[in-house]
Amino acid sequence: MSTVLFSDVGQIVTCESADERSVRARHALAAEDGCIAAIGPPEELVARYPRAERVRCAGGVITPGFVDSHTHAVFGCWRAGEYALRARGVPYMEIARQGGGINASVRDLRARSEDELVQLTRARLREMLRQGITTAEVKSGYGLRTEDELKSLRVVKRLNEEGPLELVPTFMGAHEFPAETRGRRSDYVHLVIQEMIPAVAEAKLAVFCDVFLEPGVFTAVEARRILEAGLARGLLPKLHADELEPSGGAELAVALGAVSADHLGRISDAGIHALAHSQTVATLLPATLFFLGHKQYAPGRRLLDAGATVALATDFNPGSAPSPNMALVLTLACSHMGFDPLEALLAATAGGARALRIEDGRGALRPGAPADLIVWGVSDYREIPYRYGVNMIRGVWKRGVRVV
Amino acid sequence: MSTVLFSDVGQIVTCESADERSVRARHALAAEDGCIAAIGPPEELVARYPRAERVRCAGGVITPGFVDSHTHAVFGCWRAGEYALRARGVPYMEIARQGGGINASVRDLRARSEDELVQLTRARLREMLRQGITTAEVKSGYGLRTEDELKSLRVVKRLNEEGPLELVPTFMGAHEFPAETRGRRSDYVHLVIQEMIPAVAEAKLAVFCDVFLEPGVFTAVEARRILEAGLARGLLPKLHADELEPSGGAELAVALGAVSADHLGRISDAGIHALAHSQTVATLLPATLFFLGHKQYAPGRRLLDAGATVALATDFNPGSAPSPNMALVLTLACSHMGFDPLEALLAATAGGARALRIEDGRGALRPGAPADLIVWGVSDYREIPYRYGVNMIRGVWKRGVRVV
Repeated sequence: MSTVLFSDVGQIVTCESADERSVRARHALAAEDGCIAAIGPPEELVARYPRAERVRCAGGVITPGFVDSHTHAVFGCWRAGEYALRARGVPYMEIARQGGGINASVRDLRARSEDELVQLTRARLREMLRQGITTAEVKSGYGLRTEDELKSLRVVKRLNEEGPLELVPTFMGAHEFPAETRGRRSDYVHLVIQEMIPAVAEAKLAVFCDVFLEPGVFTAVEARRILEAGLARGLLPKLHADELEPSGGAELAVALGAVSADHLGRISDAGIHALAHSQTVATLLPATLFFLGHKQYAPGRRLLDAGATVALATDFNPGSAPSPNMALVLTLACSHMGFDPLEALLAATAGGARALRIEDGRGALRPGAPADLIVWGVSDYREIPYRYGVNMIRGVWKRGVRVV
Repeated sequence: MSTVLFSDVGQIVTCESADERSVRARHALAAEDGCIAAIGPPEELVARYPRAERVRCAGGVITPGFVDSHTHAVFGCWRAGEYALRARGVPYMEIARQGGGINASVRDLRARSEDELVQLTRARLREMLRQGITTAEVKSGYGLRTEDELKSLRVVKRLNEEGPLELVPTFMGAHEFPAETRGRRSDYVHLVIQEMIPAVAEAKLAVFCDVFLEPGVFTAVEARRILEAGLARGLLPKLHADELEPSGGAELAVALGAVSADHLGRISDAGIHALAHSQTVATLLPATLFFLGHKQYAPGRRLLDAGATVALATDFNPGSAPSPNMALVLTLACSHMGFDPLEALLAATAGGARALRIEDGRGALRPGAPADLIVWGVSDYREIPYRYGVNMIRGVWKRGVRVV
């Protein structure tokens, strides 16, 4: 039995609720066999766990590890050249015509072996851990061929087994239409439904099925068919919705009972209302809109006020969000979306867990929950979004074991 | 004689010009006695410096160290609580009425000893170095009393002498009107001109004199009087101009022959024209507008196209820009202001040196210049703004000595 006692803590933010009850000043935390055993006054815990390994936090802050509920972390190379073109004002469609954009990642991923992708992704997961992410969803969607979608999901499976970052796999064959099926949309939708989904389900390689619903990509009719086919094979629906144009994505997600509707940069009033009265989590990805140079973010404040369950995630991917920095996502939420720091922290932990249907307690700190936590070198949790752009993490623990 | 040879370099970005001639692929760099001795083909340099200490860069990128030409790095405590209020929509004026805002930093700095401020600032300069900043301007302006302005500038002097980060001091007694002179503006302007400037000049504690010209703070008439008084005592003028409202700041800076006009979020067309036809550097501070939640940044592209000399800087301060992350400033410039990555890099190095009238070669990599440089763990310089929010610096050298 291994016990760790975190002492000299300035604040423990439990993320059990979006009010000050979540913030425990000068408490200690004990973890036993990978789970949280107790949170309480230091003298009590020291007496109760006299032989525990001690982690002295020098007045720092403890929060749950981040639960990043939306990433595309399995990919080949970066696309920095494309960023330079975009900065010079070359439109995305022109970049795509020149062979860039998502299809560049598709060609690249298809050309790489599973082992190569494991190696590339492993380094990125290390960086995600250093940014405090202890659980992450990872989507396929740069394969767009049955064998390459399965390859991507096997990469996720292997890296999840390897640990320490826990991964939740999502099948997203409907991320884009591959170059070779242009003009034959229905053939590709058919392939996704008839071949990919059964193969993914058969191999138990995904928990969720996701579709990129956006004008010019998949339509609402296609999205519904694909997600229903996924659900029939046990894959829970998620939906890329209303990122750049309002297209009824949030409403469709609710109608389908989707676990989450993601992006929502241009969600309609009806979409906000629908989400607020549903179990579908509103997953906001402001780092993407930031990087793409947009001025308008998702209406985070309105979603919170309407009563929606909100998650914040990185959308980590090589095209539109090449950063796994979740703390910076909190800054975006506070500076540009009307969150206060506690609401933002909650959305990136407990909210992320909701968006992944994780029910073992991850995303909050309470007795019985996995001891996934971050020790921050700050004296107040509000410094986490405030002192942005500098990694103030002093250590990360995954199920009670120090991993950073 | 100590010689360091940087080999296995993917790219050296010299920042001599904003075109591809600045980017040398697969070259090596030799530094001798703190200065750059040569940049050229690796086999040539290896033959020329056979006994040099070798730094193998694993295919990484070398750039000049950042020259951060606008910071307020001498301050007491952080103001994260105020950020949380602002995120909830409390206006700045209300926060100021509650005792927050810049006057909170003034009260705090006045209450601290010089030694205490040295210690607090030293830790922040370490973080600036870790972010690749090898030269930084630092302003006073949280004292707003002669003794406290002098104290702040002595902190800068001591830390500059201590090194390794080189600091350039700016006197900014005209940062705000202190609480005790409210309603007696002319008394405070008189104090700045008659007492502070002579004392600062006498003690040789500053190179520049800066004024916060903005509606509600100092007027153009006051700014002109203060900057002219400074100039008469040898302090070169800088001007906080047009951050939140167009107020003729850029034009005034040019009329006064100021070294730089800083912020420029709302510069007028006439201001752009004036700067483009002057020696005054346009210093842009997008991290501030980002953090404050503004949607509109300074017209960087138009300033570049008009022919202005542009610098990018962090504005590092506890109120509106609590981040010394210069790479993230480059991301803001590329994603939101129409810079390409090379232009952004140039503005944060050579541009910063111009904004500080540094003429010893810092800000670019060429034989004879100080060997202030960053080794990045990226294979292409365009990844520096692209992979934002993650510190990809593998090492920092200051005058030929490794400091990070």
